[in-house]
Amino acid sequence: MQKECHICPISEYPIFETNHWKVFLSWDQNYLGRCLISSKRHVESLSQLTDEEMIDFHRVTEKLETGLKKAFPFTLFNWGCLMNHAFQEKPYNPHVHWHMKPRHDAPITFDGKTWIDTAFGKHYLPKTSDILPKEKLDKILAHIKLFIE
Amino acid sequence: MQKECHICPISEYPIFETNHWKVFLSWDQNYLGRCLISSKRHVESLSQLTDEEMIDFHRVTEKLETGLKKAFPFTLFNWGCLMNHAFQEKPYNPHVHWHMKPRHDAPITFDGKTWIDTAFGKHYLPKTSDILPKEKLDKILAHIKLFIE
Repeated sequence: MQKECHICPISEYPIFETNHWKVFLSWDQNYLGRCLISSKRHVESLSQLTDEEMIDFHRVTEKLETGLKKAFPFTLFNWGCLMNHAFQEKPYNPHVHWHMKPRHDAPITFDGKTWIDTAFGKHYLPKTSDILPKEKLDKILAHIKLFIE
Repeated sequence: MQKECHICPISEYPIFETNHWKVFLSWDQNYLGRCLISSKRHVESLSQLTDEEMIDFHRVTEKLETGLKKAFPFTLFNWGCLMNHAFQEKPYNPHVHWHMKPRHDAPITFDGKTWIDTAFGKHYLPKTSDILPKEKLDKILAHIKLFIE
């Protein structure tokens, strides 16, 4: 773990991990099932990953997309590796991680709450956030984990 | 090539290709050096790529990030695989491709035009576009190609 890294310390809401990656349910469920996938190694850019880490990331996409489609009627998944936050102050200290936002063409209701993907077919809405209480996040997490094989 | 796919036919402004991927300069240079990277195979999701295609994509990230950093003083690169456009009408027909937006913490001037990354350190601005005339795009393309090894 590196000092001053905002990715290394993340530990809440783990879904699963592989040899090289850790998968978390995001605290921000503006998109139901939104996840954060971080490299176990503090590595600065996609191009600096090893081939082994890249293949292992491929395993993550398979396992996560397959499991999430069983857990909820998602239509597709938006994947992004941006890392902008790490560049707000010098010295820059990026750490490779992915944001994964499931998208769905019909409303999904879970635990008394309904998610409507109002921008379906278009770019996700980056500025909204929906921070659920811990017990609600735990329920989504538990439900997803039932379908991760 | 599949019918009704908006990615298969793309051919303008090619930068380079590998066994499994084609790299193009985007017609939208809202971010200088913005690229589109498409899978040669009409494949529907990241998880459906083969390991060989994924490793080859890793080669693309290395070659492109390294070359672009030599061509311009870019600070980092935002990578995204979204594919929302393919879900605007049924039957959905997605084709894996990446949008790559270089980000820079200082203005960059090229061919008489200055790019300022006003949202540096934050999410890219998704809704702006900057469509340059062909001769301007050709100059950016030619400059980048000088540095792709």
